[in-house]
Amino acid sequence: MKKILVANRGEIALRIMRSAREMGIATVAVYSEADRAMPFVQYADEAVCIGPAPSNQSYLLTDKIMGAARQTGADAIHPGYGFLSENARFAQAVKDAGLTFIGPSPSSIEVMGSKLAAKQAAQRFGVPMVPGTETPLRSIDEAREVVKKTGFPILIKASAGGGGKGMRVVNHADELEEQVRLAKSEAMSAFGDDAVFIEKYVGAPRHIEIQVLGDQHGNYVYLFERECSIQRRHQKLIEEAPSSCLTPDIREAMGKCALDVARACQYYGAGTVEFLVDENLQFYFLEMNTRLQVEHPVTEMITGLDLVKEQIRVARGEKLAFSQADLKINGHAIELRICAEDPANNFLPDTGTLTTYVRPQGYGIRVDDGYEQGMDIPIYYDPMISKLIAWGVDREEARERLLRAISEYHVKGIRTTLPFGSWALQQPAFINGAFDTNFIGKYFTPQSLDHSDPEAAKAAAILAVQVWQDQQRRDKQQPVNLQQKLWKNRKLLR
Amino acid sequence: MKKILVANRGEIALRIMRSAREMGIATVAVYSEADRAMPFVQYADEAVCIGPAPSNQSYLLTDKIMGAARQTGADAIHPGYGFLSENARFAQAVKDAGLTFIGPSPSSIEVMGSKLAAKQAAQRFGVPMVPGTETPLRSIDEAREVVKKTGFPILIKASAGGGGKGMRVVNHADELEEQVRLAKSEAMSAFGDDAVFIEKYVGAPRHIEIQVLGDQHGNYVYLFERECSIQRRHQKLIEEAPSSCLTPDIREAMGKCALDVARACQYYGAGTVEFLVDENLQFYFLEMNTRLQVEHPVTEMITGLDLVKEQIRVARGEKLAFSQADLKINGHAIELRICAEDPANNFLPDTGTLTTYVRPQGYGIRVDDGYEQGMDIPIYYDPMISKLIAWGVDREEARERLLRAISEYHVKGIRTTLPFGSWALQQPAFINGAFDTNFIGKYFTPQSLDHSDPEAAKAAAILAVQVWQDQQRRDKQQPVNLQQKLWKNRKLLR
Repeated sequence: MKKILVANRGEIALRIMRSAREMGIATVAVYSEADRAMPFVQYADEAVCIGPAPSNQSYLLTDKIMGAARQTGADAIHPGYGFLSENARFAQAVKDAGLTFIGPSPSSIEVMGSKLAAKQAAQRFGVPMVPGTETPLRSIDEAREVVKKTGFPILIKASAGGGGKGMRVVNHADELEEQVRLAKSEAMSAFGDDAVFIEKYVGAPRHIEIQVLGDQHGNYVYLFERECSIQRRHQKLIEEAPSSCLTPDIREAMGKCALDVARACQYYGAGTVEFLVDENLQFYFLEMNTRLQVEHPVTEMITGLDLVKEQIRVARGEKLAFSQADLKINGHAIELRICAEDPANNFLPDTGTLTTYVRPQGYGIRVDDGYEQGMDIPIYYDPMISKLIAWGVDREEARERLLRAISEYHVKGIRTTLPFGSWALQQPAFINGAFDTNFIGKYFTPQSLDHSDPEAAKAAAILAVQVWQDQQRRDKQQPVNLQQKLWKNRKLLR
Repeated sequence: MKKILVANRGEIALRIMRSAREMGIATVAVYSEADRAMPFVQYADEAVCIGPAPSNQSYLLTDKIMGAARQTGADAIHPGYGFLSENARFAQAVKDAGLTFIGPSPSSIEVMGSKLAAKQAAQRFGVPMVPGTETPLRSIDEAREVVKKTGFPILIKASAGGGGKGMRVVNHADELEEQVRLAKSEAMSAFGDDAVFIEKYVGAPRHIEIQVLGDQHGNYVYLFERECSIQRRHQKLIEEAPSSCLTPDIREAMGKCALDVARACQYYGAGTVEFLVDENLQFYFLEMNTRLQVEHPVTEMITGLDLVKEQIRVARGEKLAFSQADLKINGHAIELRICAEDPANNFLPDTGTLTTYVRPQGYGIRVDDGYEQGMDIPIYYDPMISKLIAWGVDREEARERLLRAISEYHVKGIRTTLPFGSWALQQPAFINGAFDTNFIGKYFTPQSLDHSDPEAAKAAAILAVQVWQDQQRRDKQQPVNLQQKLWKNRKLLR
């Protein structure tokens, strides 16, 4: 493998290229017209523009990407996350062109891409599931039969689903028929497939996932868990490893289950098996993501492994260089996703120019990002601009270090989730590790945020001194126009 | 301990403040007039200007620093490295004022500040020494007696010495008298003390130091070694941990010896015991540094400990929270000192403005620095502007990662040791770990450096295309003035 084309953008493109460079492998960036000036384009050894900004005219076009690979002589493609990373046909097209796809086989992607097929595969290995249907619901009578076993509340889910679409909670028998109908119609319009199934609804769950790694020779390891319960509308905001609630026994049991899921689809490469964990630490298989996760750095920082390098080694056909017994959890890592969203205003996406962008530095801090000061945040893509990760010898040190790093992170021009991170990390429930996926709903209000921005306060103080000095100097000869002064200094006060 | 005054500047001041902030302790910066705009001044919770730039009018003035401590109500002082960090009288003055000195006791500093007193103290614990005199040389006859035992070559060293001053190698008996006379006179003029002693000269040695940590209750641990052989004129340039040449047995033996040295002066806090190691892996005690070392981050990255936090905990009277058995070496770390020096021109110090200053990012990379883009590098202080540290799961990964980070580090406006680092890390002797303190003398010439700056090449290519396009466009109607064009684009080509 001599040249990797990275079929992605932003921080993950840059992150993949860094590992490739360390391995002495050249890189090719593909980019949309909107991304021309992005750091990942500069960083690559070669770069090819593949079309206009909307993803369906560039980053989602297999032909354009394969064309760029031919043009540059790339011999492998890394899909990153999102875009085409879990598209079995794309993985097949890469293979068919004689190139290496840095990821699992198309058939693994296909099996795990269908929630029901994934459940059926996992079932054969005895992986614990939330009780419910194992095949698409055929009739409302079948639904009533299932509910007799599970009891209410239940969850109706679209088989092809994701992001909460086609998902409905049902609390009473008399809502059942109507909700099934609505879920099927939602699923059809969102995914072109109206297959739905029923699961018992687990209240106050934790979302905990296991990172797995397999080679093409049947060897598997699990790289422990990531706690991802701090979510808003199924969007993770803070992730950490290890979880503050698992015991060594449950960790091992979940790890073994995750490997069973991986074996069930003959998985190789890096993948993630997601579980729901209830108050009694009972865990249930949710789904498998057949790609690198956004939150993979926390696993890297507690294991020392570079997951992108491991993906590349597996794709080259190498055997894993370590076994489960070699792996130990070293310390604790917490990641905050920094998104161009306004936490004070319902996390509404924000756009604009990064007029100030200063990263934190120092021991135990890692910033994976994709922008530089002065750049515009485009409206076309995911609002995540950076991932801030802190490592500590224990959870409390990681938490304190992440708070310190947040205090050093200076972003102006757009609103971000940094103030949310600062708030969340100081919540007693977070400090004690006693939270579930309802953390935000339970504790967060926009008023929680500290609105006393020290920068704005400083700017206001400077302005006040200037006005006062002007008044002194002019000695009433010419009254200061405060309105005008404020207008001139509006940037300071922004 | 509520508020720490940091009696230092630049990267180390910032580094100390970061740990204090993580511990919830407020910080005070003291700064010279030249350092007014430095990041460490901005970072501190309070800052006090203590005088003009030359250190003897600011950073070396105990009274000014104690005054700033009184003024701000600081209850502890961290001296960093250099300046007053190994000045026993300063440590005593801090104690006398009822404040906590974050470092060892004044008497430990005093004993280890004298090379002969240190040797005498270590001798009582049977620590191996380079054969030679144990008291100041009283006569040339005594010197002749000593040489009968050690043989030539020998080294004459000043007892109060440091930085190679008052140090002379003697190869033959007929040079002995003259060289002793010269060394004594050099020592007198450099240190106001003409005491010199003799040591057998160890050829092709490695310089390896052991990090020790002790509390005020008599508990000690060693945090393994740092390999510091890549030096130029006794100035370390690249440091790593662990050393590529030690066996576990020798590591343990050196660690135990280092603890003996610490016990010999009732040491507490973080300290470093330096050893010479010869080709046969025989090691000899050299000296003890009673402060945090510049290169302490490599130890932090292989042990997970935060040495500044440990210093603070020991100073507060806490017991060490771990024992020797708890400590393990995790991976490998290498540090490159980035100095404002021109490696192509005999490492001559350079000054100027950091017109471009972009740090590397990503997994395993740590930058400890003290400047920002747009700042001037003052002439008054140490030329080190940054420390670039890479961690890897093994030595080879750390090396590849450091090279990757060097390729991402963009500094313009001043010349730095970055190209030297890039060269050194790619030398077979470095890759194989087969080097000693003569590494630079043996392999390095200014011609070793890669002068093909990719940025300049890119700028030249852009210029060429522009000229060609202009010619096309104008179609000979108006000839391009290449001279003028070059002048306009001179910034690109700089």
